[in-house]
Amino acid sequence: MELLSLIRAKRRGAELPAAEIHRLVTGIVEHSVADYQLSALLMAICYEGLSYNETLELTRAFIDSGVTLDWSHLPGPIVDKHSTGGVGDKVSLMLMPWLAAAGLTVPKMSGRSLGHTGGTIDKLESIPGFDVNLSGRQMEDVIKQVGCCIVAQGANLVPADKIVYTLRDATDTVDEMGLIAASVMSKKLAAGADCIVLDVKCGSGAFFTSLARARKFADIALRLGRDLGKPIGCVISNMEQPLGRTVGNAMEVLEARAALAGESPQPDLSALCATLGGVLLVTCNRGASYQEGQARMERARESGAALERFDAWIAAQGGDYARLEAARTKAEKELRLATVPALKDGVISDMDTRRIGEVARRLGAGRLTTADRIDPWAGILCRAKIGDSVVQGEPLAVLVRGPAAPPVPGELVREYQQAVAVSSYAVELPGIVLDVMPANRGLSIIGG
Amino acid sequence: MELLSLIRAKRRGAELPAAEIHRLVTGIVEHSVADYQLSALLMAICYEGLSYNETLELTRAFIDSGVTLDWSHLPGPIVDKHSTGGVGDKVSLMLMPWLAAAGLTVPKMSGRSLGHTGGTIDKLESIPGFDVNLSGRQMEDVIKQVGCCIVAQGANLVPADKIVYTLRDATDTVDEMGLIAASVMSKKLAAGADCIVLDVKCGSGAFFTSLARARKFADIALRLGRDLGKPIGCVISNMEQPLGRTVGNAMEVLEARAALAGESPQPDLSALCATLGGVLLVTCNRGASYQEGQARMERARESGAALERFDAWIAAQGGDYARLEAARTKAEKELRLATVPALKDGVISDMDTRRIGEVARRLGAGRLTTADRIDPWAGILCRAKIGDSVVQGEPLAVLVRGPAAPPVPGELVREYQQAVAVSSYAVELPGIVLDVMPANRGLSIIGG
Repeated sequence: MELLSLIRAKRRGAELPAAEIHRLVTGIVEHSVADYQLSALLMAICYEGLSYNETLELTRAFIDSGVTLDWSHLPGPIVDKHSTGGVGDKVSLMLMPWLAAAGLTVPKMSGRSLGHTGGTIDKLESIPGFDVNLSGRQMEDVIKQVGCCIVAQGANLVPADKIVYTLRDATDTVDEMGLIAASVMSKKLAAGADCIVLDVKCGSGAFFTSLARARKFADIALRLGRDLGKPIGCVISNMEQPLGRTVGNAMEVLEARAALAGESPQPDLSALCATLGGVLLVTCNRGASYQEGQARMERARESGAALERFDAWIAAQGGDYARLEAARTKAEKELRLATVPALKDGVISDMDTRRIGEVARRLGAGRLTTADRIDPWAGILCRAKIGDSVVQGEPLAVLVRGPAAPPVPGELVREYQQAVAVSSYAVELPGIVLDVMPANRGLSIIGG
Repeated sequence: MELLSLIRAKRRGAELPAAEIHRLVTGIVEHSVADYQLSALLMAICYEGLSYNETLELTRAFIDSGVTLDWSHLPGPIVDKHSTGGVGDKVSLMLMPWLAAAGLTVPKMSGRSLGHTGGTIDKLESIPGFDVNLSGRQMEDVIKQVGCCIVAQGANLVPADKIVYTLRDATDTVDEMGLIAASVMSKKLAAGADCIVLDVKCGSGAFFTSLARARKFADIALRLGRDLGKPIGCVISNMEQPLGRTVGNAMEVLEARAALAGESPQPDLSALCATLGGVLLVTCNRGASYQEGQARMERARESGAALERFDAWIAAQGGDYARLEAARTKAEKELRLATVPALKDGVISDMDTRRIGEVARRLGAGRLTTADRIDPWAGILCRAKIGDSVVQGEPLAVLVRGPAAPPVPGELVREYQQAVAVSSYAVELPGIVLDVMPANRGLSIIGG
């Protein structure tokens, strides 16, 4: 079937045959598919939807388009985590060494910041000396030494998705659930873990702004895991406000370590990590329930094992954490700061977290195109979050830029003020965990 | 606004601003618009639709994308006709000299065959010596001499449509009514006529298979004519069976002249031409009603003036009609013929005219891609049409190929048989004219 026939079939609402989906993906990787036809097909898919079977075959074909990794010679269980992206999301920095401390093996690939969301690789690169580009052999050495490793995702893993994603991004065809699931899950499944936990973010700072869409994605992901032989667990977590107190690369690394050390005023961050770890432990049969796993995670943190593993891991990948701390002390005097004052007295009732993410990006913490450069010190220190009382003129947040950057424009201060709603009434504090869906059950056990 | 923003706006169902439509079309002609973004926008338009205002601005922008012709120095009224395409549609060959005989001036541009429909230029090229590539000056000379002229449409007329149409064709985004109307009407309006009549074909061999869609198109076309200052009339005509008795290039030229000479057994063909001419006469204020214009047309044929003008016109463009006649006599002995026998006794109740058009194309009368070569003698002689009685084994049609072509494959004989339904009951004969919508009234005066 030619691509024109596939477009016609999809426009009629037909299900595309498995063989045609595989042929299409082969054509994409071989660059024999015209991008203008592919974008028309993607738009038709956004209107007609992908069935579960189409999504499954697309995921399979994506995986087959490149190399798949195999860690079976390492001591198991091999685990991985994926986040659908948020603002202030430093979970990977904390969770990976923490899981290693709890006895799991974590060979992780991460991405860079794009748009309003941050990227783990950019965060790690704010640590002087940290190497995110390890060979497979180097990864193994680090893992054998400390149990975990995080590197930048290579181009040879699911190359078809890279091409399709670039086109989707340029043609406003990103929001179809099957396309999203195939893109996310193919990369995770090709990366060779035995068990995977998904942190599905939901709220104003997330890709999924409604719980219904977050659950739908989680359901498809769990089914894909079952049909492709990998146990998957999901946590749907709250992204109605930035996670933790900081947004920005170096600041998030510092906050992540502080949280592991029990020095953070933000219990949400540790609670989310412990839940994700608990779900992962039960997913790979290390415990009877995720609550049991969660308790085991808590013990690994309280004992100091998680923090110890964090330090060992950073050092194993060449990172000099002491230099980051020293740079912070030195930089603090030279950083360009702008305090964001509250416009009135009251209680914070809402944070437009995507908008806050955009403020962080415009400060220099992220990028709009892959060519943009990152300022490791740029970002936001959130002094007040939802439920906190604020007084007119007192700081809601501090906007930060590195010493070499131009001063923070007043426009960004006003933008942050507009992103935060202050109410005269008390507000209910949102919980960080909205739902937990353990491996291959596909049933919600919290909430609806 | 970038193209990505236009795609987003259209996906939300928003109306695209006039300035953005003009900027888009400028970008298309300057090749600064990425075709993969344009095709995604076209697909979103197919789902969301173009509003009338968007269609009007797109038509304007298309016209502005190239040259517009001006015939105002010629004696008026300057008229033009457009057909939405059919099978056996030799109307232009008859109508243009006929209109000239009725006192109108007809500088016409036509297209070539594509898919299952024929093209006037291919038909004219079957006449030895006929030149379809005249300069503007040469066109004027022919018009001054005989009152009409038909040439191949130049590339400098509405270049934006050419680019967009190629992309629509390759991405299954041809069927949105606003896109269709802007494509058709921009070309007609740029060609410089004072008044235009549209032959909107409706039925199994036409682009519009339902009367509702044909009327909708006619309504938009009439409104565009009003808003862009050109009176337009429409005739919706029956394309449930081939027009006349022949399908194919040389055969249609011969049939057209025979019909003008009153030698055709097919009154439909002349009736449709007279109606189109009548609508055009009233559209340019040459008569009180289209029926009056129709009567004037009939007189111009009965007097022999139309036939005389046909012969003078063919000669004026270098065509040697006598050689075509001679070639027919000679070729008839050498043509490759295949009779299509009726499979049973009865009355023809249905003809799948698109399928019949495809049979003609596969015989060599048309082309699938612009690279395909045409056999001027290839085509179909329809011996029986809807309402005609047939006897098992007697011919439904004769399939024809030129002397140099390979024999007609049995597959095409069977294909034709399958395209024709034979019933045991009498069937109602369809009228050739389904509706008439005179200039700028937008009201149907026949039918619904």
